Amino acid sequence: MRIVLNFKNIDYEIRPVHLVKDEQNSDEYKLLNPKGEVPLLVLEDLALGQSMAIMMYLDRKWPNPPIFPSNPERRAECIQLCEVINSGIQPIQNLKVLKYIEGKIDKMEWGKYWIEEGLKAFENSLAKTASQYCLDDSLSAADMFLVPQVYNAMRFNVDMEQFPTIKKINENCLEHQAFKDALPENQPDAS
Amino acid sequence: MRIVLNFKNIDYEIRPVHLVKDEQNSDEYKLLNPKGEVPLLVLEDLALGQSMAIMMYLDRKWPNPPIFPSNPERRAECIQLCEVINSGIQPIQNLKVLKYIEGKIDKMEWGKYWIEEGLKAFENSLAKTASQYCLDDSLSAADMFLVPQVYNAMRFNVDMEQFPTIKKINENCLEHQAFKDALPENQPDAS
Repeated sequence: MRIVLNFKNIDYEIRPVHLVKDEQNSDEYKLLNPKGEVPLLVLEDLALGQSMAIMMYLDRKWPNPPIFPSNPERRAECIQLCEVINSGIQPIQNLKVLKYIEGKIDKMEWGKYWIEEGLKAFENSLAKTASQYCLDDSLSAADMFLVPQVYNAMRFNVDMEQFPTIKKINENCLEHQAFKDALPENQPDAS
Repeated sequence: MRIVLNFKNIDYEIRPVHLVKDEQNSDEYKLLNPKGEVPLLVLEDLALGQSMAIMMYLDRKWPNPPIFPSNPERRAECIQLCEVINSGIQPIQNLKVLKYIEGKIDKMEWGKYWIEEGLKAFENSLAKTASQYCLDDSLSAADMFLVPQVYNAMRFNVDMEQFPTIKKINENCLEHQAFKDALPENQPDAS
């Protein structure tokens, strides 16, 4: 989410929510977001959860530079790539699920398995769409989902050499300040 | 997906993919959809996976009747509701994941748990948005995600009495032919 805000040059304030301390399940937070999940975008009269909803809303209200292509087919392919990560990987390896499987299934193996499954499909789809970035030579929402997922993949010891296109695109993205500034280690709550 | 096609009156041909027979992992199918998942929309020069990508593409190419509100805030709330199901429930209780946990975690308990978690959040969010349907009195993509998920919830023995708003909206939706015609038991491959 930070990448999009940086990329569009939107002023924002970060309010860290400590998942390990369970702050996302406080009454105060759940009033804003009943699902008790991050990220959450809070505007004057709107509290919005779910990454795709937030990114599409930001793109509508702050259309320049765009993060979804205007050509309908390319736009659809962009959303498809976003969802391979947003619905295909992230929900299966998030903290809530890892807590549930604790003691029954090895968490590192589980995370690695689903990330590799998803990135395999992502890498294959890129053959049709990618050049310097996921979609041709313009940064898009797909890149903004990909880079944090690659960061996460490394925490689960996924060998990125098996995904050469993803690896190259990730490097290309990280040359941009919007992506660099969003790295976890550059955040106020980095420990 | 069938609900959207029916609702927009788009002609289509159904090609059933038998998940239990693993047809989604055939080489032929994976050429079209590297992720080996359903649904898949195949048009003249586009093969599109991921429900959100398909629904948004259909809404752009066949805009009437719309399935996403035009008001930016309502539209964002619609996408948020869709994602509570699309990324918050469906991926965790799909066939691939159930296969992985087999023998380690009880599949029925697992499915029920994640569906209830998701529907609880969905029900709470509806307090801000719902009337006859998820968003005011117009059918939208949120209803089209909800009805199949409720159908699925019943397979996992979820007691729908704990979600009165969802239960009522589900009933209202099922009065429409587009929803009725999409019920699994009304499909060519229903066994």
